[in-house]
Amino acid sequence: MTFSRSSLPSEVQKLIVAFSTLPGIGPKTAQRLAYFVLTQDKNEVANLATALKEVKENLDFCKTCCFITSNEDKTICKLCEDKDPILICVVESVIDAITIEASGIHKGGFHILHGAISPMAGIGPEQLKINELFNRLKRGGTKEVIIATNPTLEGEATAMYLTKTIKENYYDIKTTRLARGLASGTDLEYSDFNTLSNAFENRTSLDI
Amino acid sequence: MTFSRSSLPSEVQKLIVAFSTLPGIGPKTAQRLAYFVLTQDKNEVANLATALKEVKENLDFCKTCCFITSNEDKTICKLCEDKDPILICVVESVIDAITIEASGIHKGGFHILHGAISPMAGIGPEQLKINELFNRLKRGGTKEVIIATNPTLEGEATAMYLTKTIKENYYDIKTTRLARGLASGTDLEYSDFNTLSNAFENRTSLDI
Repeated sequence: MTFSRSSLPSEVQKLIVAFSTLPGIGPKTAQRLAYFVLTQDKNEVANLATALKEVKENLDFCKTCCFITSNEDKTICKLCEDKDPILICVVESVIDAITIEASGIHKGGFHILHGAISPMAGIGPEQLKINELFNRLKRGGTKEVIIATNPTLEGEATAMYLTKTIKENYYDIKTTRLARGLASGTDLEYSDFNTLSNAFENRTSLDI
Repeated sequence: MTFSRSSLPSEVQKLIVAFSTLPGIGPKTAQRLAYFVLTQDKNEVANLATALKEVKENLDFCKTCCFITSNEDKTICKLCEDKDPILICVVESVIDAITIEASGIHKGGFHILHGAISPMAGIGPEQLKINELFNRLKRGGTKEVIIATNPTLEGEATAMYLTKTIKENYYDIKTTRLARGLASGTDLEYSDFNTLSNAFENRTSLDI
């Protein structure tokens, strides 16, 4: 008999495959997690299984801003409360929205895309909450869309797509992008070419 | 209103906590996984939840060697098939047993401890499948126990504990430990002190 990993019970192999679908978890880590679960306390494993189920069953996206909200919460979501839709900040993820909201810098509304356009990963506009944004703009009342996607290839592609579509269809709405330049507290010496290039290009006049 | 991560629905917070119980997954990674699950395909999430449940419900440890085996498999486990219990190789994990078995080097039986003694992590002999090993030795027929725990602090502590207990209680059973020295294909220049020290101490005579 040749003995290998495939001699393991099918339950373990299924669990390894299921763990591998999570981001940043390769086959080796998935295997390690599966073996850990085998010896883990039964209640802790049950907690994880239940939490996974409940997140998909009890949660939904806010009909307005696409933030995560409880199914029972039929009214306005926590992030939309007391927000003026005149200014909408578009972010890639829930955590980005929380970061900006917690900073208190932005007083307007939010819109969460839940990702960024990435042709390499097969993510196009239709996989994101972009239509929901356009429907919102159609309802009127918005004067400016601040695009706060990440300063990455995917974030830039998303920003370009949004700007272009908004300009073509909602020409009275202004689109802006978060400024690019040197981050506070960093060392100019260690800044990469793109950052330096942006810092020069977007230099501001010193009005003293 | 102050807005923070705690403003998230309780379902998400529970999932973050549940993910954090897994090894190598800290609060930041747990959060990233939880947000990923929110946008992941419903079926894939259900697969993971089911796989977790089934691993705990349908699997058990082999009554002889403590390998993972299906509940339905009431007979002998795959790893115990055609094995002479005269020689038992003790390993820390299922994957160690698979590695040794697949190499074909060891023809005897196995015993899987499912961990190693680690007072720092609160793991003592009673948390491991050590009693199962002693019960097996009590039944007789074993001449030698090869201890193949990892060459780490925990693995060494486990090997010492096993050797001592076996010597005291089953004085006719020989205990051996896998040899320590230079690993094949490595560079002597980059070997650490312990490896070099072991290589000198366990040097073998060249009988030409």
